[in-house]
Amino acid sequence: MKGTNDPATLLIDDILSMEGSFRRNFVNSLTGFKSVALVGTINAKGEHNLAIFSQIIHVGASPPYLGVLFRPHTVTRNTFENILETGSFTVNHILSGFAQAAHQTSARYTGSEFEATGLTPEFSAHVKAPYVKESTIKMGLELVEVQKINANDTELVIGAIKEVTIPARFVGNDGFIDLEAAGTITCSGLDSYHSTGKLVRLSYAKPGTQPTPL
Amino acid sequence: MKGTNDPATLLIDDILSMEGSFRRNFVNSLTGFKSVALVGTINAKGEHNLAIFSQIIHVGASPPYLGVLFRPHTVTRNTFENILETGSFTVNHILSGFAQAAHQTSARYTGSEFEATGLTPEFSAHVKAPYVKESTIKMGLELVEVQKINANDTELVIGAIKEVTIPARFVGNDGFIDLEAAGTITCSGLDSYHSTGKLVRLSYAKPGTQPTPL
Repeated sequence: MKGTNDPATLLIDDILSMEGSFRRNFVNSLTGFKSVALVGTINAKGEHNLAIFSQIIHVGASPPYLGVLFRPHTVTRNTFENILETGSFTVNHILSGFAQAAHQTSARYTGSEFEATGLTPEFSAHVKAPYVKESTIKMGLELVEVQKINANDTELVIGAIKEVTIPARFVGNDGFIDLEAAGTITCSGLDSYHSTGKLVRLSYAKPGTQPTPL
Repeated sequence: MKGTNDPATLLIDDILSMEGSFRRNFVNSLTGFKSVALVGTINAKGEHNLAIFSQIIHVGASPPYLGVLFRPHTVTRNTFENILETGSFTVNHILSGFAQAAHQTSARYTGSEFEATGLTPEFSAHVKAPYVKESTIKMGLELVEVQKINANDTELVIGAIKEVTIPARFVGNDGFIDLEAAGTITCSGLDSYHSTGKLVRLSYAKPGTQPTPL
């Protein structure tokens, strides 16, 4: 599309007629900047798995839940199988210093991605699955529910947050976490990693007044 | 937590005993930087609605689907009701120049948030719901499926992308969209908006080799 006049409007047939990898890059970019994290799991034999995910969504605060979307059964999904097997997983924020190792967990390893990438497994008395030692902010979760999306056989795994490890200095007086100070990165598309810059925090919105910077 | 030694580990009982708004800020921050966009809808009477959402997730590329998570029926959900009524919605990226107006759409207006916030509705022959004229990247979607999360009665709306409007200069030769150049912002927590800075794009990961910058 480069060089053509813009803005361009594409209809569904234009998108479906794109070459496969072009379409994957294009559509994966459309949802904007995404949550990205390393998901740690363990199977019944005690073998570890670590994989990078960008389909992560906040589901609820009280009790605290989050969701991770998994691709259909047609691809190998060690992480998904391990979560079903042990009911446990961890979500570990990614810092720029190990973005490359985090990305490399998406290679099709037969053994542990911890060993293959040099990231360090770390354990807690409260959670079966391994954490990533290098992560600053990390959570241990228990499987609550799996919802299948019938449209394309993806599956949304809902986890209940049971444990959070976070340097206290990043938590504000109102509970807000300064992810930027903590070094958490974001991603776009399938393979692009980004730092962030603070624009503004805004007060709770009410009709008739403008929100003010916090 | 400020001032205490870190890192601190919080167990679920610590989180559940937090004051309500502290917990909302805290847990909403845990999933990292989030996709944030304005969702435009229309009801059967032709009345418009515009609301900011950060629970947006990529669901599939072929065919292209995305999901938006909605809070339970205990709160007013004009956007959700409109989508069920007309089967149509739009997702519009947010630029820093109208982040405050985008945030303000979360106020409990009785009329159209377009009028209240000064954002401009824009129409397409292919999509019933209104777009946001000020947005650089925008999509029109048709309702495909609703999946209820039983754990907390939230509902995941799956939409099929039918139309995409995007300045062609932001689309690379491989389909990757340069969201940063397009000015798309990200958010964290309930009320914090952020620009991004490019770190790196990495090649497809394979065992035995290191990914290289693209």
